[in-house]
Amino acid sequence: MKRFIPILVISLFCSVAGVAQQKTTLPKPNVVLFLVDDMGWMDTSQPFGDSIMPLNRKFHTPNMERMAKEGLLFHQAYVNSVCTPTRTTLISGLSSVRTHITNWTSITPDRATDYKDEVLAAPAWNINGLSTIEEPHTFLYRKPLPQLLKDAGYFTIHVGKAHWGSLGTNGSDPRNMGFVVNIAGSSLGHPQSYYGQQNYGNMPGKTTYNAVPDLQAFYGKDVFLTDALTEKATGALDFPIKNKIPFFLYLGHYAVHTPIQADPRYFGKYLNKGLDSIEAAYASLVEGMDKSLGDLMDYLKKKGVEKNTVVIFMSDNGGLSNVARGGKRNTHNLPLRAGKGSPYEGGVRIPMMVKWPALVKPGTKTNSYVSAEDFLPTVLEIAGVTSQQATDGKSYLPVLKNPSIIDNKRPLLFHYPNRWTFLADEGYAWSSGMRLGAWKIIYLMKDKKLELYNLEKDLGERNDLAKSNPKQLKELAQIWTRELKARGAQMPTWKATGEAVAWPDELIP
Amino acid sequence: MKRFIPILVISLFCSVAGVAQQKTTLPKPNVVLFLVDDMGWMDTSQPFGDSIMPLNRKFHTPNMERMAKEGLLFHQAYVNSVCTPTRTTLISGLSSVRTHITNWTSITPDRATDYKDEVLAAPAWNINGLSTIEEPHTFLYRKPLPQLLKDAGYFTIHVGKAHWGSLGTNGSDPRNMGFVVNIAGSSLGHPQSYYGQQNYGNMPGKTTYNAVPDLQAFYGKDVFLTDALTEKATGALDFPIKNKIPFFLYLGHYAVHTPIQADPRYFGKYLNKGLDSIEAAYASLVEGMDKSLGDLMDYLKKKGVEKNTVVIFMSDNGGLSNVARGGKRNTHNLPLRAGKGSPYEGGVRIPMMVKWPALVKPGTKTNSYVSAEDFLPTVLEIAGVTSQQATDGKSYLPVLKNPSIIDNKRPLLFHYPNRWTFLADEGYAWSSGMRLGAWKIIYLMKDKKLELYNLEKDLGERNDLAKSNPKQLKELAQIWTRELKARGAQMPTWKATGEAVAWPDELIP
Repeated sequence: MKRFIPILVISLFCSVAGVAQQKTTLPKPNVVLFLVDDMGWMDTSQPFGDSIMPLNRKFHTPNMERMAKEGLLFHQAYVNSVCTPTRTTLISGLSSVRTHITNWTSITPDRATDYKDEVLAAPAWNINGLSTIEEPHTFLYRKPLPQLLKDAGYFTIHVGKAHWGSLGTNGSDPRNMGFVVNIAGSSLGHPQSYYGQQNYGNMPGKTTYNAVPDLQAFYGKDVFLTDALTEKATGALDFPIKNKIPFFLYLGHYAVHTPIQADPRYFGKYLNKGLDSIEAAYASLVEGMDKSLGDLMDYLKKKGVEKNTVVIFMSDNGGLSNVARGGKRNTHNLPLRAGKGSPYEGGVRIPMMVKWPALVKPGTKTNSYVSAEDFLPTVLEIAGVTSQQATDGKSYLPVLKNPSIIDNKRPLLFHYPNRWTFLADEGYAWSSGMRLGAWKIIYLMKDKKLELYNLEKDLGERNDLAKSNPKQLKELAQIWTRELKARGAQMPTWKATGEAVAWPDELIP
Repeated sequence: MKRFIPILVISLFCSVAGVAQQKTTLPKPNVVLFLVDDMGWMDTSQPFGDSIMPLNRKFHTPNMERMAKEGLLFHQAYVNSVCTPTRTTLISGLSSVRTHITNWTSITPDRATDYKDEVLAAPAWNINGLSTIEEPHTFLYRKPLPQLLKDAGYFTIHVGKAHWGSLGTNGSDPRNMGFVVNIAGSSLGHPQSYYGQQNYGNMPGKTTYNAVPDLQAFYGKDVFLTDALTEKATGALDFPIKNKIPFFLYLGHYAVHTPIQADPRYFGKYLNKGLDSIEAAYASLVEGMDKSLGDLMDYLKKKGVEKNTVVIFMSDNGGLSNVARGGKRNTHNLPLRAGKGSPYEGGVRIPMMVKWPALVKPGTKTNSYVSAEDFLPTVLEIAGVTSQQATDGKSYLPVLKNPSIIDNKRPLLFHYPNRWTFLADEGYAWSSGMRLGAWKIIYLMKDKKLELYNLEKDLGERNDLAKSNPKQLKELAQIWTRELKARGAQMPTWKATGEAVAWPDELIP
């Protein structure tokens, strides 16, 4: 067994000092974030592991394969295990441990979304999300990424799912985050309907808060939500491209989140492959998203801006495997364990690629790990924009330049002092995790239990080394506790006593 | 009596040949259209007639008074008598007689909005509105004004009410008309609610198609719709102003259209003045709109762009006086006759002002008449943009430069081969009108009757001169018929025979 080498872990809470890399005569690179909702690491025919695995054969994503050929693939990209924490981290560069936005935000303001629990109570997390003004139950963050880019002259466009805050709060309107254009983004965590024939939910008498706004020209038509958003996104790019204004496009697809509604263009194919109706629908959602990726790449090429446009493909959390899927629970991200809502790899490891013909070598791969916090400092550095605001992340621009750089000595935290839904096994509630080097340490709070895995040997987290490696466990628990405390982590409390659950290192005698 | 001097009326259907007036080194002027919905000529403390009249004392609009002091006031500005015809004319430069969009469009596609009638049937007008692509029941117009401006590098912003076409058609999305930014514009003809506390109508279970989109950050808050739109409009201006991009802002207020909901900030004041509750609410809607105008002018000044920004204030049709108002019908626009939906002056004459410190002399007034068709060629000429598309209008830039120019020799048409609502007196159904010089001629189709008024002597259209001036009547009817036919006018048909109603000149033996 590989020996763990203690490393000096310094706080990463330092000022972003992105240095303009471009000469002023060169145009600033454009940036596209292609963010898929709830897409798992295995939900693609493009392998993100070292080889093609059985689940890869379930899906057909030719445009992801194409993007991998044209860009850099990250084997080890991480985010939070649920959506709002990742999404607010992407635009703030701050860990959700620090923002106290540790669970998904409700459309309804002032409403905690934690599932009821007899034993533990969630801490007072920021249930209304992120805000650029002082508002109750929000994390105040004055200048989110789009605002910084807008201030620097970038034309900032938001299309699709936002989900940064509850209705009636500042964060519910992407314009308040610094987007010049917003199409279809609000407090919604998922769409009421993917179907144009159902007006994406906008049907008097049936309309809920999940009806998708802004797509009225498609009402009644056979236009799937994913396509409608793609068309609006490319349409919105016309102005900055024509006028040579650098742009930042945040295309947050509602796909492939529930409701798992079949995309009729691809559904039959997956039924024919023998998938059950839910999984066939899911695979069709994935392929519709993949078509959008292809359409977008084609558009950028056609418009002559492909070379200097950085396209970042990623998901906001691991694939759903707890509820609502076809087949057996906790099998949808295999070989990864568990899924969305869990600190195991299935919940936090995501497919990620970066295409940037001007800088990134085509067909490359990296084992350097990255996390959601890194997105903001990376994009700022690419754009040559500086900010006085702190970040928990680190720019991965060096990795884009040289994928052989392996920089896996930072602790990555997956902290979830919350309960997601009714099925709470496999870390789906009251859990925390840390990745450091080859190691992954898991804390199941209700069980007062720590687990230890070596991901280099045990990607599936099946072989708990906690008992056999007490020294390693202790060292990691101490680092972890220090990092959690440095970020002001919140912990759940025991209902019986009102006391907070122990820090990881307190579990070790 | 003044003798009518026959004039050569040539078709105005000629190519727009706007000539760039600005040297290329000067920045292009910004243009703001401040469009109020259903505001009548008398709904203001700023007189648009020659003197203060009783209804002027009912309202308090200090910012309109300020704008009149700082700009040019049009005594005789005209539009169509209902909303969609005016709105589609504003962005196409084409008469509604030509576009066949003669009545307001329903949110529901393929639905004619004409009120049922036993005797007459509406022609096959374009019930789905304006479109930039080929679609059923729409008028095809490839490059609306915002698109032309956008193509010329203008940053085009739509905020508020659009109402160019039905849901599911191209015209229902302002982006398809060439707006870079759209906030709150759709197929809606009126808002479901003006109240933030009611989420502007977005209340699951109660939401109709009239719920106003895009204002989620104000949900549950005490923010009146008019203010929410103003805040969003000024917010949207930040990007073009900062980056020195010329802008076109189309701020289409939902106010002061029904539902006549009180703006709580001003309501009590009007109750105290003795107005009934409906009229007090109406006056409060007007004053809220007036505040928006002031806020916008303040913003432009603060940002240093006041001087080179053309602000055009206008309404989309005359004031409502047929239904839903307090007090006696047909009194709300006095001394003007009738109101919205009628070709009498109360239905088509509107308050209009233009402020442009760089060019327009403050505190000036003009008796030159203008109509909705003139908006497009005027704005194109101001922006130095040319178009190969035809227009029925004429640029009033010369009048802005010299308000003493009186150019009232064009026929202005108010053609309404439709039925608006259940009360069909006073030209509120199956009617047409033409203004030419001092004359106004009215056609009440069901009565097979022509009326003739001399507006210079009889602004209130009380003294029908048809019988006493047969020669004049005949001459005008011939001109009118020629103009209607030249624009391809549609006429209603008699249900009994299926025949079209007569042209105006056919009524004269």
